[in-house]
Amino acid sequence: MASIHSIADLGRSAEQQLPVHLWDFIAGGSGDELTLAANRAAFDAVHLVPRVLVDVAEPNCGTTLFGRELTMPVAVAPMAYQRLLHPDGELATARAAAAAGIPFTVTTLSTVAVEQITDTGADTWFQLYWLRDRALMLDLVHRAENAGCSALILTVDVPEMGRRLRDIRNGFALPADIRAVQLPEAATSLAQTRSADASAVATHTSELFDPGLNWANLEWLRANTRLPIVLKGLLDPRDAALAVEHGVDAIVVSNHGGRQLDGAIPSIDALPDIRAAVGDHCTVLLDSGIRGGIDVLRALALGASAVLLGRPVLWGLAVGAETGVSATLSMLRAELHTAMRLTGCPDLVAAAALRHAKPSHAEKGVMSR
Amino acid sequence: MASIHSIADLGRSAEQQLPVHLWDFIAGGSGDELTLAANRAAFDAVHLVPRVLVDVAEPNCGTTLFGRELTMPVAVAPMAYQRLLHPDGELATARAAAAAGIPFTVTTLSTVAVEQITDTGADTWFQLYWLRDRALMLDLVHRAENAGCSALILTVDVPEMGRRLRDIRNGFALPADIRAVQLPEAATSLAQTRSADASAVATHTSELFDPGLNWANLEWLRANTRLPIVLKGLLDPRDAALAVEHGVDAIVVSNHGGRQLDGAIPSIDALPDIRAAVGDHCTVLLDSGIRGGIDVLRALALGASAVLLGRPVLWGLAVGAETGVSATLSMLRAELHTAMRLTGCPDLVAAAALRHAKPSHAEKGVMSR
Amino acid sequence: MASIHSIADLGRSAEQQLPVHLWDFIAGGSGDELTLAANRAAFDAVHLVPRVLVDVAEPNCGTTLFGRELTMPVAVAPMAYQRLLHPDGELATARAAAAAGIPFTVTTLSTVAVEQITDTGADTWFQLYWLRDRALMLDLVHRAENAGCSALILTVDVPEMGRRLRDIRNGFALPADIRAVQLPEAATSLAQTRSADASAVATHTSELFDPGLNWANLEWLRANTRLPIVLKGLLDPRDAALAVEHGVDAIVVSNHGGRQLDGAIPSIDALPDIRAAVGDHCTVLLDSGIRGGIDVLRALALGASAVLLGRPVLWGLAVGAETGVSATLSMLRAELHTAMRLTGCPDLVAAAALRHAKPSHAEKGVMSR
Amino acid sequence: MASIHSIADLGRSAEQQLPVHLWDFIAGGSGDELTLAANRAAFDAVHLVPRVLVDVAEPNCGTTLFGRELTMPVAVAPMAYQRLLHPDGELATARAAAAAGIPFTVTTLSTVAVEQITDTGADTWFQLYWLRDRALMLDLVHRAENAGCSALILTVDVPEMGRRLRDIRNGFALPADIRAVQLPEAATSLAQTRSADASAVATHTSELFDPGLNWANLEWLRANTRLPIVLKGLLDPRDAALAVEHGVDAIVVSNHGGRQLDGAIPSIDALPDIRAAVGDHCTVLLDSGIRGGIDVLRALALGASAVLLGRPVLWGLAVGAETGVSATLSMLRAELHTAMRLTGCPDLVAAAALRHAKPSHAEKGVMSR
Repeated sequence: MASIHSIADLGRSAEQQLPVHLWDFIAGGSGDELTLAANRAAFDAVHLVPRVLVDVAEPNCGTTLFGRELTMPVAVAPMAYQRLLHPDGELATARAAAAAGIPFTVTTLSTVAVEQITDTGADTWFQLYWLRDRALMLDLVHRAENAGCSALILTVDVPEMGRRLRDIRNGFALPADIRAVQLPEAATSLAQTRSADASAVATHTSELFDPGLNWANLEWLRANTRLPIVLKGLLDPRDAALAVEHGVDAIVVSNHGGRQLDGAIPSIDALPDIRAAVGDHCTVLLDSGIRGGIDVLRALALGASAVLLGRPVLWGLAVGAETGVSATLSMLRAELHTAMRLTGCPDLVAAAALRHAKPSHAEKGVMSR
Repeated sequence: MASIHSIADLGRSAEQQLPVHLWDFIAGGSGDELTLAANRAAFDAVHLVPRVLVDVAEPNCGTTLFGRELTMPVAVAPMAYQRLLHPDGELATARAAAAAGIPFTVTTLSTVAVEQITDTGADTWFQLYWLRDRALMLDLVHRAENAGCSALILTVDVPEMGRRLRDIRNGFALPADIRAVQLPEAATSLAQTRSADASAVATHTSELFDPGLNWANLEWLRANTRLPIVLKGLLDPRDAALAVEHGVDAIVVSNHGGRQLDGAIPSIDALPDIRAAVGDHCTVLLDSGIRGGIDVLRALALGASAVLLGRPVLWGLAVGAETGVSATLSMLRAELHTAMRLTGCPDLVAAAALRHAKPSHAEKGVMSR
Repeated sequence: MASIHSIADLGRSAEQQLPVHLWDFIAGGSGDELTLAANRAAFDAVHLVPRVLVDVAEPNCGTTLFGRELTMPVAVAPMAYQRLLHPDGELATARAAAAAGIPFTVTTLSTVAVEQITDTGADTWFQLYWLRDRALMLDLVHRAENAGCSALILTVDVPEMGRRLRDIRNGFALPADIRAVQLPEAATSLAQTRSADASAVATHTSELFDPGLNWANLEWLRANTRLPIVLKGLLDPRDAALAVEHGVDAIVVSNHGGRQLDGAIPSIDALPDIRAAVGDHCTVLLDSGIRGGIDVLRALALGASAVLLGRPVLWGLAVGAETGVSATLSMLRAELHTAMRLTGCPDLVAAAALRHAKPSHAEKGVMSR
Repeated sequence: MASIHSIADLGRSAEQQLPVHLWDFIAGGSGDELTLAANRAAFDAVHLVPRVLVDVAEPNCGTTLFGRELTMPVAVAPMAYQRLLHPDGELATARAAAAAGIPFTVTTLSTVAVEQITDTGADTWFQLYWLRDRALMLDLVHRAENAGCSALILTVDVPEMGRRLRDIRNGFALPADIRAVQLPEAATSLAQTRSADASAVATHTSELFDPGLNWANLEWLRANTRLPIVLKGLLDPRDAALAVEHGVDAIVVSNHGGRQLDGAIPSIDALPDIRAAVGDHCTVLLDSGIRGGIDVLRALALGASAVLLGRPVLWGLAVGAETGVSATLSMLRAELHTAMRLTGCPDLVAAAALRHAKPSHAEKGVMSR
């Protein structure tokens, strides 16, 4: 990784190394990929207003989530099927997260079992889809609890998978040796069944997930777990207010990285209204578009408590397994450290008080080489 | 149609298969085609804010227009001379609409007679231009009534045809075997007379249509038909209010797909003010730029009761006659179904309550393959 | 001119036919040509909201300026040295304007004498620069009066010429047989003296024009002519109000076609504030960016009484002398006629009442062939 | 320099003549260079509204700063290591500034000693970084005082250097014969130590500068010098107000030319709020994006007292030593003179009263040749 000097370099390297259908699986969005592009454009449109003459010799990036300490306000986002990218899969990612002192999210569709993940010592969150098989779901919840997970992340924006044209054109399916190991084998073979005009993963999802999920279901889940419950995938402040009313422990403002509704509002654009709706005491996480330390700061300035990091983690995994993910996380930490200094923020409270502005014009970075 | 996975794919396929002058005839706009482009840019600028935790197991896309049930809030827009694209012409389109459970609009310039259209069983609307020959117009109205049409769509934005440079450069004229069969043969030959520096269709239009149409004429029409009257081509809320005062049954917010005034406001931009002007009880349809299910939802969220679908229907017709149009309509329905689920809309009432936002920056989708 | 179907076609044809240094002389702007580009972008950003159901069988484009009738709200803008483009020069342009029933503006730097221009029968306005030689200026004013000009257009935005890099790079100078015939021969030779690092025309201008022009001078001019005085080159509403106070007969909102201050506000953006500042009774003309009939309508909708047409007239002159200019003017008239019909405007009063909107997004016309 | 007709031409010439790693060192920004690009986009988005009919025969561009007269409201910005670009380094630049009658800023990292600079007769400002070695800093302050500098510019936006990827990719280091001559030799060798994955200059900076700088330190500095103190690198109006409270003599609104926080607000966008926060009596300078005379006027119209000119000075230095810098400064003066005439500004007070507008659309200059 000699010539890798930025997180974007890692991404370019991953794109070069991965077969097209795998790169497309992780990089792609739904539909015309307008929301995928809008996520980045919306971040770039947040111009921060730095403070100066504040002692930033040792900025403190640390925070606390669900009673655990984080070395920076970042967690690894839930991402399925990580053994597609490297044989070590989620294990490599979790180890790097543990080493970096940030939480790792293991998913319902993990290719490594939750117990192996928590064995790495990582602060582990368990991501849950709302399954048609309620007993199976409950079993997963209890496994997560017993393995020592510190939070349940319930994904609420996948009543069905967004139409990801790259996967459909590629006839994407999981290879025979990759499966969601926490689900019964019978339940996962569909994801391995290649079709000329469909994504096997999408077909599998629609078989498995229950699009009927609603607020009443949430109360049932609340009654069946002692873990903090985090709702992932909210964009409307009315839903954020309902989440607070229903006593959830945190929410994740997210458009699923541009992979669900193409045409959805960028999550960073949705954030200020949501923060206003829930007030200061609710934990508000954000994902969809975070690519560097300055983006973390932008999210904090617009109201986030912390962010989830997605694709850049997978780039690291593809390029160098645990070492690669560690490279992603340490570059991110270095960028955040620098960004806090350059904005005069000794801690995250200062970051939340930064002013920001929108550009009044179109712009585009030009990097000649 | 093995490799067609989206409505845009159908469009690309149609462009490849059609002779240039026919593709240009359906794809082109007027002038510099700024409004044609603005229509799409304006849709893409509507960022929807999805709801979550609503049971969307079975979203209901159905609605009712003019006393008839539609399986989705979509009708086939009035489009002339469909036999140019396939020998089956309007018959193929109507059959596909009937099969899909949505209305078909037969036009004054149809190449298939209204009686043949209604025989397909399609819920049929009759589109009327204001003709210089008032007796002929009345005759068309009565044929429409007798054939069982359920609504009259009076196009009010064509006092003359917009200057469509592609057709002029192509010296576009109808071939000898294509004519508006509902008009007297003598009245239609002009459209078949090729000229090096004009569109024969435009010349024909100016001979046939009466640019003097005004609100007083409307009352005369009202007195001469028992069908619901729909005004197509309104963009100013003052006109929408006048339409309500004059007792019309519905309006279509439209800039004629960018084919009339180049420089006109995109219809989706005009919609909110118009909905505000007419209140909740007026039926407001919209066309000009609808290319997929998310656009239908965008239109509903901004105030439309339903939309008219234009060019994508012709793409299907050109590529595969009735089968092709059915492909367009079933892809649209699938997209709408997905979009309703991904926005947490169990029905169209929920869709109307969706929030939306404008991007504060330029953006462009990037689809690498 | 067989393949010329639009005013833009005329421009392309002129660009092909003219030597580079002449094309650059008429097409270029000052500095980085940002204002030149902004002029067009600003027009394209005016989305008109058409009216419907108004009798537009015979829209009346006529108006009155300075007691004379115009067949459309358009005059030929003052443009220097027209014999550069065709031996007939201003004579050809004036004849075409006369035939079209619109005013022609003869300039201080005309290559044809004002008396020859008025002999064409054209309604003629005389454009005046504020010359260091006050006696010469007075002589010009009296020649204009005696020749029968109907207005004096005093250009107030050229204390010196904007830095036009194309001309400087081209070492632009007038050929020996082209000169401002209304000025003494001694005063014009500088414009013919080629320099490797300057525009001879600019050098000449700075020798000739007086940058000290101010409101007091205006009163002196007022006292020395019975012609209506029009100030050309205002952009600030405070200046427009001062003009009204000083009793001028009309103003021209203009940034000199992007040829003076690069970075100046587009005149169409400046127009609404100026109209608001002067009220309904002042004649407000506009130039800088008018390229077609829809632009005329945009200007009227934003507050202009009429517009001045510049470069497109020169395109016509270069391509076909009087015939070419007539082609420009008849295409413009046809476009305006169509645009009035398509916006439901039976007359210019209706045009002034049109609503308009700004796009909320970037857009660009795409004309595939 | 025969074919150089604009400041941009000088830049292109410098890019051609300099080795890539040197061009990158002066041209580059930090991160993705979004702020670098945004700086220019923000200037171009300021549309000035010119005045007319004001006597501008002899516009007076002069002003006074810190008791000294300037021939125009421009000073040479602090820029390090100028002997990289030409053996004469800061001496050449200072001489050109002296000849032009504007201040020159000598930096802590100058490759020519301050005493040699003041010997040129230039009005000299001394730029100070907050060094970990407080005694060394004090020594520099006293040298500046004794040499006759007229102001101290304390740079407050470099607690550490922004991540400049071009330098990192180039493994940029100072050659053996270039060093900051005002610092002890031991303290500067790090900047000459080449590394494959770092910028030696950044490494050196982090060794040398103290990121703990805060308002309390400022009072200590105030107590230790009789020179006016200028804070450089403010963007937040709250900091500007604090600066006034702490009795500083002037501030520089700056994002360090896009070289510190990538994602920072353009300084021209930050200016109006800062001027509002400090009122009319505080001297407010601005840099970051000034490329020509019109930009100076834009900055004045938005609230600046004067501007600092950066990269264009280095372009001149690289292309032609003192002669080259003089070319930059005389082109700038000529552009400013023209711009004041074309906006009707006889002096800088008039410039401050100019109106300005934002474009409502994307635009881009097109310069065909």
